[in-house]
Amino acid sequence: MIASRRSLVLCAVLVVSSCTAQAPQEASAPPPAESRVAVSTAAALPSWNDGKTRAALVSFVQGVTAEGKDTFVPASDRIAVFDNDGTLWTEQPMYFQLAFALDRVKALAPSHPEWKSTQPFKGVLEGDMKAVLAGGERSVAALMAATHAGMTTEDFSTAVAAWVKTARHPRFNRPYTELVYQPMLEVLAYLRSNGFKTYIVSGGGADFMRVFAEQVYGIPPEQVIGSRIKVQYTVRDGKAELFRLPEIEFVDDKEGKPIGINAAIGRRPIMAFGNSDGDFQMLEWTTSGQGPRFGLIVHHTDAEREWAYDRDSHIGQLSRGLDEAQARGWTVVDMKNDWNAIYPVPKP
Amino acid sequence: MIASRRSLVLCAVLVVSSCTAQAPQEASAPPPAESRVAVSTAAALPSWNDGKTRAALVSFVQGVTAEGKDTFVPASDRIAVFDNDGTLWTEQPMYFQLAFALDRVKALAPSHPEWKSTQPFKGVLEGDMKAVLAGGERSVAALMAATHAGMTTEDFSTAVAAWVKTARHPRFNRPYTELVYQPMLEVLAYLRSNGFKTYIVSGGGADFMRVFAEQVYGIPPEQVIGSRIKVQYTVRDGKAELFRLPEIEFVDDKEGKPIGINAAIGRRPIMAFGNSDGDFQMLEWTTSGQGPRFGLIVHHTDAEREWAYDRDSHIGQLSRGLDEAQARGWTVVDMKNDWNAIYPVPKP
Repeated sequence: MIASRRSLVLCAVLVVSSCTAQAPQEASAPPPAESRVAVSTAAALPSWNDGKTRAALVSFVQGVTAEGKDTFVPASDRIAVFDNDGTLWTEQPMYFQLAFALDRVKALAPSHPEWKSTQPFKGVLEGDMKAVLAGGERSVAALMAATHAGMTTEDFSTAVAAWVKTARHPRFNRPYTELVYQPMLEVLAYLRSNGFKTYIVSGGGADFMRVFAEQVYGIPPEQVIGSRIKVQYTVRDGKAELFRLPEIEFVDDKEGKPIGINAAIGRRPIMAFGNSDGDFQMLEWTTSGQGPRFGLIVHHTDAEREWAYDRDSHIGQLSRGLDEAQARGWTVVDMKNDWNAIYPVPKP
Repeated sequence: MIASRRSLVLCAVLVVSSCTAQAPQEASAPPPAESRVAVSTAAALPSWNDGKTRAALVSFVQGVTAEGKDTFVPASDRIAVFDNDGTLWTEQPMYFQLAFALDRVKALAPSHPEWKSTQPFKGVLEGDMKAVLAGGERSVAALMAATHAGMTTEDFSTAVAAWVKTARHPRFNRPYTELVYQPMLEVLAYLRSNGFKTYIVSGGGADFMRVFAEQVYGIPPEQVIGSRIKVQYTVRDGKAELFRLPEIEFVDDKEGKPIGINAAIGRRPIMAFGNSDGDFQMLEWTTSGQGPRFGLIVHHTDAEREWAYDRDSHIGQLSRGLDEAQARGWTVVDMKNDWNAIYPVPKP
């Protein structure tokens, strides 16, 4: 570790590991313990620039895994929860699940001639998003009902899987599932390699995300918590199915996030990652438990490589989180300066 | 494997493993593959008598773990769901969670002088269960509201943990958590050692079972699905809590079981274990998926060591399950004849 103002600042934010500014080592000398930790961290989180954000993350993980220390947390309690839209993958220019709904309207249109003259479907088919959005939440509900209900759970999964394979993001012309944040993929893997169980806790639909979460994030379906529509138990031709109804059962947003986590997991996580005020209560609940706690907000500050937005955005609005993060001890990622990569390298 | 009528019958029900009646082996000869499997099975399931029930269970597990065979199921899809009351532990002479509620009424009575003259509390305090039950479901709801709500989720867990430590079952004078079925503990461990993820799916309260499920069954809180009351997100003195409300949110019984499984796990299990008609839909949904499927019903036939009841019982009624098990290919455990032990050996 090089003795510089930067490393002193880094030391100051390291709560647990004791590190002292050191002169550069001789090439032949064995690296000191601190240096070895830094190397292994850089290896685990290569897309994170050296700085206080990465240091805070690493320091926390080192603390909860340090057996015998006050900060130690048994593996069974190492639960980390991640918002999805804007935290694990991009959410601009619209939630990807809404893009799925729009594409599905187009796919289903031949069986629905009435959509040519009925909003919001007419707007979708004519590419007139203003007309679609003019109907507000009611339009979105109509779109969701037409595209997310009226089929079995298994048929819905099949439809999502087909869309994921073929759809492309309008700005980057890549599959949506490639627009996941490389630095966050590294955090997920880093936490799991340190005994954490990682969960998605998203306002998006649980059954939508479950189709790709294992392949994309290494998170199995049973560790995906999200919004849900009602399903009905039906038996057809002697075969039992769950049929999706056009009715919201649970909205996993704001207060809904801690409530959804409690219903699914039954205990309070020790780490929470979000990006918008919809994640505020999840961060608040997670970080007001006893023992070591960690909250992190991804601040979208990079208009060039991704998007820059916060207080005035209609998607992923972040205002209270920015105001209170410091006082609450939450870490804020400055995407532009903390991340040296945004997305994984495209597959050839 | 000894060549006898019994082993031929056993072979007939083994769907997957090919076994042939053999003469007893020389002591010095290496045991054939089939014999080794039988030995390891007996070691894994010592409280199950040799017979078609155990054979069906073992045959299924051997099939789904046999790589390269048609019956193989990848580990990520090896999900097994277990009802709790009457399937993993005793449910007589009343659901253990009701016993907790009654004990809690007595514990809370000093702060509720009005209970001395109000049913169903008066009946509980006077040990007059007839008076309690005379109020039907309304009485039970009043008891549940008074004993399961009006506190934070963490305070409720503390209350359950305290009760588990001190309460004793009226017939066996043992802690309730020792009245779990030894043969089922062996099945849980056997399945997990074969790559299965084991879940509880019970009409009982999820937050009640989560307190002891990990210690008793090796099932962590996040793999416990159950009924739930509503919780409210509250912030008191800057600390976020979930406060339990006296209102049912979800009943995890009958059709609720597949619905609860889908909400929590997001995929169809391949094995389901139950004991009453409240488990019928869970068994039906599980066993009507594609690929290898296994359903099992524990039939309470042992009045001497436990209880004997089915069609006419007000607890754990089993009628349709008995009528349809054979046609549906479900295995029925005859507790008296299939199990050589009921409960674990008491701790000294």
